[in-house]
Amino acid sequence: MIIHLAQINPIVGDLKGNTEKIISTIRASKKEGADLVVFPECALTGYPPEDLLLLPHFIEETAFQLQLILSETKGTGAIIGYPRKNPHTGEKTLFNSAAIMMDGTLLGVQDKILLPTYDVFNERRYFESGTEVKLWDIGGKKIGITVCEDIWHHTEAVPQTSYQKDPVLLYRDLKPDLMINISSSPYSVNKPSIRFDVCSKAAQSLRCPLLLCNQVGANDSLIFDGHSLYCNRQGELLASAEGFKEEVLVVDLSKEYTPFPWTIKTEENLFQALVLGIRDYFLKQGFKSCCFGLSGGIDSAVVACIATEALGKENVTALCMPSRYSSEASTHDAKVLTENLDIRNIWVSIESPFQSFLDLLEPHFEGKPPDTTEENLQARTRGIILMAFSNKYGHVVLSTGNKSEMAMGYATLYGDMCGGLGVLNDVTKRQVYELAEWINRDKKIIPQNILDKPPSAELKPNQKDSDSLPEYAIVDAVLEDYIVNHLSPQQIAEKHGYSLELVEDLVKKIHINEYKRRQSPPGLRVSERAFSKGRQFPIVQKWV
Amino acid sequence: MIIHLAQINPIVGDLKGNTEKIISTIRASKKEGADLVVFPECALTGYPPEDLLLLPHFIEETAFQLQLILSETKGTGAIIGYPRKNPHTGEKTLFNSAAIMMDGTLLGVQDKILLPTYDVFNERRYFESGTEVKLWDIGGKKIGITVCEDIWHHTEAVPQTSYQKDPVLLYRDLKPDLMINISSSPYSVNKPSIRFDVCSKAAQSLRCPLLLCNQVGANDSLIFDGHSLYCNRQGELLASAEGFKEEVLVVDLSKEYTPFPWTIKTEENLFQALVLGIRDYFLKQGFKSCCFGLSGGIDSAVVACIATEALGKENVTALCMPSRYSSEASTHDAKVLTENLDIRNIWVSIESPFQSFLDLLEPHFEGKPPDTTEENLQARTRGIILMAFSNKYGHVVLSTGNKSEMAMGYATLYGDMCGGLGVLNDVTKRQVYELAEWINRDKKIIPQNILDKPPSAELKPNQKDSDSLPEYAIVDAVLEDYIVNHLSPQQIAEKHGYSLELVEDLVKKIHINEYKRRQSPPGLRVSERAFSKGRQFPIVQKWV
Repeated sequence: MIIHLAQINPIVGDLKGNTEKIISTIRASKKEGADLVVFPECALTGYPPEDLLLLPHFIEETAFQLQLILSETKGTGAIIGYPRKNPHTGEKTLFNSAAIMMDGTLLGVQDKILLPTYDVFNERRYFESGTEVKLWDIGGKKIGITVCEDIWHHTEAVPQTSYQKDPVLLYRDLKPDLMINISSSPYSVNKPSIRFDVCSKAAQSLRCPLLLCNQVGANDSLIFDGHSLYCNRQGELLASAEGFKEEVLVVDLSKEYTPFPWTIKTEENLFQALVLGIRDYFLKQGFKSCCFGLSGGIDSAVVACIATEALGKENVTALCMPSRYSSEASTHDAKVLTENLDIRNIWVSIESPFQSFLDLLEPHFEGKPPDTTEENLQARTRGIILMAFSNKYGHVVLSTGNKSEMAMGYATLYGDMCGGLGVLNDVTKRQVYELAEWINRDKKIIPQNILDKPPSAELKPNQKDSDSLPEYAIVDAVLEDYIVNHLSPQQIAEKHGYSLELVEDLVKKIHINEYKRRQSPPGLRVSERAFSKGRQFPIVQKWV
Repeated sequence: MIIHLAQINPIVGDLKGNTEKIISTIRASKKEGADLVVFPECALTGYPPEDLLLLPHFIEETAFQLQLILSETKGTGAIIGYPRKNPHTGEKTLFNSAAIMMDGTLLGVQDKILLPTYDVFNERRYFESGTEVKLWDIGGKKIGITVCEDIWHHTEAVPQTSYQKDPVLLYRDLKPDLMINISSSPYSVNKPSIRFDVCSKAAQSLRCPLLLCNQVGANDSLIFDGHSLYCNRQGELLASAEGFKEEVLVVDLSKEYTPFPWTIKTEENLFQALVLGIRDYFLKQGFKSCCFGLSGGIDSAVVACIATEALGKENVTALCMPSRYSSEASTHDAKVLTENLDIRNIWVSIESPFQSFLDLLEPHFEGKPPDTTEENLQARTRGIILMAFSNKYGHVVLSTGNKSEMAMGYATLYGDMCGGLGVLNDVTKRQVYELAEWINRDKKIIPQNILDKPPSAELKPNQKDSDSLPEYAIVDAVLEDYIVNHLSPQQIAEKHGYSLELVEDLVKKIHINEYKRRQSPPGLRVSERAFSKGRQFPIVQKWV
């Protein structure tokens, strides 16, 4: 039996386009002799479709497109994820289902049982839980079919939730010959390894081989890494698709495979994820070119490299916008970087509009000493210039602030926070340096000085980030333990030997800057807990 | 039996402050001879606490504060909403519960059964459903206790959800003498009436009187209107608390009440809601003063009136920032309005920084005709000036765009969309006019000319909104049917006799401007479906 795992990159809501992609994949696979072609969770709608699921005409059209696909399965079979109208009255009107099609006939459907409702997932908003667990007789084999989360509880890999059912155990009792899992499981740094582990453990418990078909591609903030795979009943890896690109992984169940170890390349994967995140954000909306402010600092340097890889050097414009406080070194470093990347480089001094604002406001601010007002004026003047280039040339502005800065509020709203996409919103300062080192692994693309000099916003004379913040290593450690692990300030202070005062101050900074982050561009999610819809804290609150 | 419905305004996360408020209320009620003091849903934490609920130390502290309250109930009784740790292993670690305290003893808890997970509600993210339904013997009466949503399904007043249990019917079988519902039910224009209807129907079905204690106050986007009430077994209204303010409604069950009809004042309530929304956003964060751009148009005029009512005239600064395109009429109208309101009025012409930007960009934009770039430059220059006043004086910027404009993208990101709070984000253009008329009911506060002249952004010569948009009446009708009623463009076109092309164009505008709204300031929610967390559509999608 030959099974094709079609790791496709659908566009959310593009029912016609996704259907065409599914049909052309089925046709190609049929030609190559596939007995079954497997598509990801919600392949027809793209995942996550969010509130499109609440539009009745969207659900009707999904059902219509599914019928078009059905007739294409003559001579083969297909398993396709889609939102299915709940035929009964239930708490919710939909199931998150897999359609099982053989030879032009709909054999039936398998509904997702465990509905993730935590972090970025919100499936209880739309879906009813499936209840039935059964095996499907396909090609003489008894096959179990599960949708994503259904195999995750078994490994206790689900945060903040302890489902009261374990579908893996329910299926084990049925003694399947094979388990197929269709997923739209988003990337975060350790996720590909955790996912392999989940598959491996499920296969071992089920005592049968397991196939995972995962969505690839980025939709808004979420990046899906693919990494579809085949493992044997011992949980050993037999075959896997590449990450971060479309691929049809061909699995021949009758063939002998040599198991090989699961490996991932952390920095390379992170880089690829961000590249895919930018590329899909642009491609899927029909944008081609980007611009961003290049300061001579590490963040914008790394963004320049990622954007160049994602969009091609001809589509990248770096705007250097020096002020009276910009150092010569930064100016020089920025220039060298754009030469190394061979990208367009435009120089616009902010001096004249900045001075114009200062003059205009002087009579109103008389007697008040300079403060962050004047620093923000510079950042916002740069924001206006970036947005003017965006408006005039159709470039999408990339914002370059990193997660550690966003946590601390070390960014100017409507200034450097301007943009259509926050490339590094979920990348900590430490990871930014790791990415820079990885980018420079063969060739010095980012000038060494950018990696060596202390971080500075250069908004007043001789400013350094460390003037007003502790080292980023401390910020990052507190960030991880507070926003991912939910430790209390006391627990964090004890764990790391920091003073309670220091930790409480950082935690307070995280919370009081919630209002800023609420207005930041959507950021690419690459961690277990990003500042985005996966973390929903009130702006107005007095807990912290 | 004398019951006090304590319609309090807690601050989210302020466990100590809320506990103090609860305790002082209990003490006062005890003095006045109350047998029972009832507090709203999640009164201890404020509602909605959102992801604070995921912090273990927050939940521990909540339990600790509840113990402090318990000892204060000696000689009386209290029912208090709070998140309760699930003592068993369940899908989620919490229940949304009511603690029932009598004479210093915790009689027990009643867990919320129906967990709203739609629109702005996300309770399945945190809570496990309660299962038990029972009566409590208090003061010789058999009392049923429910939490908010538990009485709503009975009237089929719940959108996108059809719960499989109806607690009202379950309680009816137990034959209660009285039903007490604790709520944190947010305001929207028709909600107070719907809520009364829900209570009335529940009382009739239960064949017993019903007491509702609802939270009052604003938390982030949500405004809670209070309107706690007492109705008899015929569902007739016997007593009700005022809307939009704290109040203890005293109900004497042994007393004869004369039923009176439920009435609401739509425009007055909307005005009060927005006033409360601003006031609590400021008070609960410790802000005192606001500023905003006053253009001479209707939106900023209405915001000026609401802000003055909310914060006091001494805390309101209107910034008039004319450009070469500002009409004399607008300038004059803005001036008259600030005189009528007696608020601070500062004039800052944007001409010099605007010209400075034009000069700076000219060599880069050579040969390109003027377009929205230059319009946005003006709006963004104003945004910078507003933010400079905000930074220098600690004023929070109010943004003044209305819902119809936000829907159409008729606003400049980082320009007039700057702000800490979007006062009219969820108020349609039609409602803005209705508010203006209501504000002017006794005295011409808003100059008539502002109400009469056609809407214009005044960003180019003789510009009118109607140059690029259909009438707002059409926009508002499509908005309502598309985003609230989820009708398809076809259905909307047929319903109103509009051309399909027109409707599709407006619907497309709604979707392509999702990216802008994602970066708008949080707005006060006053409709059934606001552009906020209650409406979760992807930015990148190809359905529309």
